Amino acid sequence: MRAIFRQELEQLGDNLIEMSQLVATAVQKAAKALADSDLALAEQVIDEDEQINELERTVDEMCVSLLARQQPVATDLRVVVTGLMMSTTLERMGDLARHVAYVARGRYPRTAASGDVQKLLNKMGKAATEMAKLVVSLMESRDLSEAARIETDDDHLDQLHREVFTRVLNKDNELDRQELIDIILLARFLERFGDHCVSLARRTSFLVTGDLSNSVSLPLEEDATDPHAG
Amino acid sequence: MRAIFRQELEQLGDNLIEMSQLVATAVQKAAKALADSDLALAEQVIDEDEQINELERTVDEMCVSLLARQQPVATDLRVVVTGLMMSTTLERMGDLARHVAYVARGRYPRTAASGDVQKLLNKMGKAATEMAKLVVSLMESRDLSEAARIETDDDHLDQLHREVFTRVLNKDNELDRQELIDIILLARFLERFGDHCVSLARRTSFLVTGDLSNSVSLPLEEDATDPHAG
Repeated sequence: MRAIFRQELEQLGDNLIEMSQLVATAVQKAAKALADSDLALAEQVIDEDEQINELERTVDEMCVSLLARQQPVATDLRVVVTGLMMSTTLERMGDLARHVAYVARGRYPRTAASGDVQKLLNKMGKAATEMAKLVVSLMESRDLSEAARIETDDDHLDQLHREVFTRVLNKDNELDRQELIDIILLARFLERFGDHCVSLARRTSFLVTGDLSNSVSLPLEEDATDPHAG
Repeated sequence: MRAIFRQELEQLGDNLIEMSQLVATAVQKAAKALADSDLALAEQVIDEDEQINELERTVDEMCVSLLARQQPVATDLRVVVTGLMMSTTLERMGDLARHVAYVARGRYPRTAASGDVQKLLNKMGKAATEMAKLVVSLMESRDLSEAARIETDDDHLDQLHREVFTRVLNKDNELDRQELIDIILLARFLERFGDHCVSLARRTSFLVTGDLSNSVSLPLEEDATDPHAG
């Protein structure tokens, strides 16, 4: 019974790692589709999101089944409950990557942005991809130095987000309305993606250290529409 | 033991209802603060969000404690797991109301938008408030006709969201960059708020009917930056 239980917990961890890999691939492809105006790649991200959703359902059912049959306590219980939370977060990250891909697809053969703002959005896409890869690596290794790096990288991503606002507010940058809408939402999607990476990093830290103080949902964003708010 | 368990499950339900009430109040006040450029009201929403976050922590701890001590199965297990999911959703809705309040505060003594677009945003704020009140009522009564109304109301909210984009894309509407940013993000916050109401309605339906088919996370948004996408 216990052996099966351990095996199932391991399977749960593997499924979460697989989800995080799919999410990292999705955001990487979405960012590339956006940068290169690559329609086929954007379509791929949109189609492949269903795999992530499917895995979320699998993980959730697995967690509920584990709770019902194995009635875990203490650390094992935390692993299962945290697994439920993480699958929801990863599914949402997949959605955000899909949203980015939608914009790339919608503007094809043009790019959604151009010039300096495009460069900034590309940087945001790369930063989000790096963070997602760190999440995969953290979930595989449980090396908490990677959790710390995710927090630092998120500060960088937030900084880029603020720079996008600064550029957009500068009227010297000629932007039509559709470009403005796209840029603001793309920056928001990528910034939220980063927040979710931080949430995963904190939950993983909590599983490793048992210290809840840094793992609960902290305010990750201040004034979302005011780039000067911090 | 069972009597205590039932009592605790009831307490869990009461806490979730209380969270939903706080969230409904938050979005109502935030929408009013935005419409009337009411700084004090905006500040209230921002301050009071901590109560919602606090209740989320309480609910989560309660759920984990229930799982550990009572080891529920079948329906009771679903109630507890769903409670965990719902508290996360409600907490996020509180954040979205807070974001709306941030914009109201940031633009005071001006309003964030004016003219027709302001009217549309006010309609969105009212629609979101109505939906949040229906969520409270649904969670209290378990009357599934209210779940159906939430779905219908969300279609209306999405329609208003698309109208905002249409107006913003029309260059005849004079809007400066800050207004554009505010409008796009406010519309997005309120539209997401509605999605979360639908998610809560589906989870509640699932608890009542046991039918999962309509309760899992369905794609609630299509192309988030293209108002013509559906």
